[in-house]
Amino acid sequence: MAGFENSKKSDSDSKKIECLSDAVINLDQGDPTVFQEYWMKMKDTCTVVIQGWELMSYFSDTTNVCWFLEPELAKAIKALHNAIGNAATEERYIVVGTGSSQLCQAALFALSSLSEVKPVSVVAAAPYYSTYVEEASYVQSKLYKWEGDARTFDKNGPYIEMVTSPNNPDGTIREPVVNGSEGGKVIHDFAYYWPHYTPITRCQDQDLMLFTFSKITGHAGSRIGWALVKDIEVAKKMVQYLTINSIGVSKESQTRATTILNEITKTCRTKSESFFEYGSEKMKLRWERLREVVESGDIFTLPNYPQAFCNFFGKTISPSPGFAWLGCKEERDLGCFLKEKKVLTRGGDRCGSDKKHVRVSMLGRDDDFDVFLHRLATIEDLKCIDP
Amino acid sequence: MAGFENSKKSDSDSKKIECLSDAVINLDQGDPTVFQEYWMKMKDTCTVVIQGWELMSYFSDTTNVCWFLEPELAKAIKALHNAIGNAATEERYIVVGTGSSQLCQAALFALSSLSEVKPVSVVAAAPYYSTYVEEASYVQSKLYKWEGDARTFDKNGPYIEMVTSPNNPDGTIREPVVNGSEGGKVIHDFAYYWPHYTPITRCQDQDLMLFTFSKITGHAGSRIGWALVKDIEVAKKMVQYLTINSIGVSKESQTRATTILNEITKTCRTKSESFFEYGSEKMKLRWERLREVVESGDIFTLPNYPQAFCNFFGKTISPSPGFAWLGCKEERDLGCFLKEKKVLTRGGDRCGSDKKHVRVSMLGRDDDFDVFLHRLATIEDLKCIDP
Repeated sequence: MAGFENSKKSDSDSKKIECLSDAVINLDQGDPTVFQEYWMKMKDTCTVVIQGWELMSYFSDTTNVCWFLEPELAKAIKALHNAIGNAATEERYIVVGTGSSQLCQAALFALSSLSEVKPVSVVAAAPYYSTYVEEASYVQSKLYKWEGDARTFDKNGPYIEMVTSPNNPDGTIREPVVNGSEGGKVIHDFAYYWPHYTPITRCQDQDLMLFTFSKITGHAGSRIGWALVKDIEVAKKMVQYLTINSIGVSKESQTRATTILNEITKTCRTKSESFFEYGSEKMKLRWERLREVVESGDIFTLPNYPQAFCNFFGKTISPSPGFAWLGCKEERDLGCFLKEKKVLTRGGDRCGSDKKHVRVSMLGRDDDFDVFLHRLATIEDLKCIDP
Repeated sequence: MAGFENSKKSDSDSKKIECLSDAVINLDQGDPTVFQEYWMKMKDTCTVVIQGWELMSYFSDTTNVCWFLEPELAKAIKALHNAIGNAATEERYIVVGTGSSQLCQAALFALSSLSEVKPVSVVAAAPYYSTYVEEASYVQSKLYKWEGDARTFDKNGPYIEMVTSPNNPDGTIREPVVNGSEGGKVIHDFAYYWPHYTPITRCQDQDLMLFTFSKITGHAGSRIGWALVKDIEVAKKMVQYLTINSIGVSKESQTRATTILNEITKTCRTKSESFFEYGSEKMKLRWERLREVVESGDIFTLPNYPQAFCNFFGKTISPSPGFAWLGCKEERDLGCFLKEKKVLTRGGDRCGSDKKHVRVSMLGRDDDFDVFLHRLATIEDLKCIDP
């Protein structure tokens, strides 16, 4: 495979790759360290200073349904969505969570608690985000039950369909697939519906939408997510879950997220400073390099995504998903094969699909991504050392 | 009742109380704002500065069982326990959580997952922390089941006993009460086992101990708690819960908790600066004022606590619990009565006890506490306006 050699790599880059030649590269989790370089370039603009006596109370705003949501964060979230045009915030309740994982569980709790019949079936169209399986199963709740692939779901009774768009792991644009007649609810996970990952083709207007700070700016360590919720009863039940589960959400993280979200909103139309311009270029380049390697051989496959007009950028662009849904042309356990090459990925079987596919994080550090491409480029066949 | 008048109040204090004469005083939650004054006096000593590019990753230390625990926080926790002498940290795993509520649920998950028989019964001796009922019930898990008062628990099979010492709501020192023969496990909640609340009479050495940053220093908004866990399998299962539930814990909060815990450890032996000296005096004064009001009349009751030698202070001291377990001598719904007086408390019935008792937070703001005492002092009988 010649792909990797074609890309412009300096001598020092080659040395780095050599140094890392024996290292295990973890592209299983989607730790979004890809954007750290941007934040280093931004220097002091998003420095947060917190005094010892600040942010001590449990309460942020006792007049709000979500009493632990800092009012300034609520404003920052609305301003960002308005600037990007990816989601409607009017006449909605904002519920903040310790990442969108906790919010997803709060939403399952809320929708199933409000259902007359229990347990409520929880489904997602394969390939799906493997963590949904764990989230819907681990506490063995009597309120809801994981039922697997939404495409083959044929039970009667109430259900909750998880719709992730763009989809994790395969980057496709999704709509609900269950044609249920009664009591069907949808949780829309829009973690990746931002212009550096996908064209913003419409302002989303769904009943229950989840977003996460981690995947917008790369600040995964802050554990901040939010839900935009139309129905006050659903919002109240979600808040009940978050109150019992963790008595709210870190005020330090909310403060920092406020500062950072305000900054990316403020600069989003200034080409030289815009986080979304930077992120978009970064992701585009990674995808071009990955496609070059894949297409220069006849071993691996990648999905092709249709271009679309992005309302935010005002031009037609290609999607650059946060994960690559890498497949192989032969019938092989690709995850197992790549593990032998010391590249950790998430097996497609964990996502309700097959072992011929793996989910590869496109969000890791430059060094790791370079080594990954290098290893991929040097694969000549899929013979396992230890089959 | 003359108690309140006896305490030294300035003219401006009296005016404040007058201003607040119509306000609803919320002493239901234990929002620990009582200590904010100390942190304001400490000025810049605990200021935290976080740059935009810091703390971005999900991971803190991939070699640790608790991979999302910041190593500096682990060190700060150990140093504090060593300085205070309230809990053993050697040969234990530290698990950090989004407050000790999340850790309590992680512990229920861990202990019940590892049990051969399910559901595992969850009990606590009444009066108990009312939130345990919600924590053990809300998701309707098949793994464990809330079974109420530990004193009357007589089922066979595995159980988990919650032991809170000093106890929330009534401030008593607790030991397990269930004499179960098989599979009994104990979660020790030591949220208030600190020298400003109670004499430190021994270094606790239990299998699974919970602590919370909120109730030590008053930083409830940070949502930081930790568990000290002997058994690695229990620690691993708790980490599994926290991984699925929220993919770890806010790094900003961990960073701030590290700074603040290190500061109170550093100054704990300097009388003029020590947080514990300050906290102890503050709580002692509040209890003296409350007892003065209660004892000057014949309507209310308070528990009496035995004095004990505190190993930390090196002298015999009286306990000053974070909550007052206020009772009335007549058969009345005390919570309902106080609500009419615009004082919100937690009814004893919610804690598995009777309506003659309420839990009153001793941790609120000075103004609120003053108004509460004033209202209590002016009560002449328990006749309800609207019985």
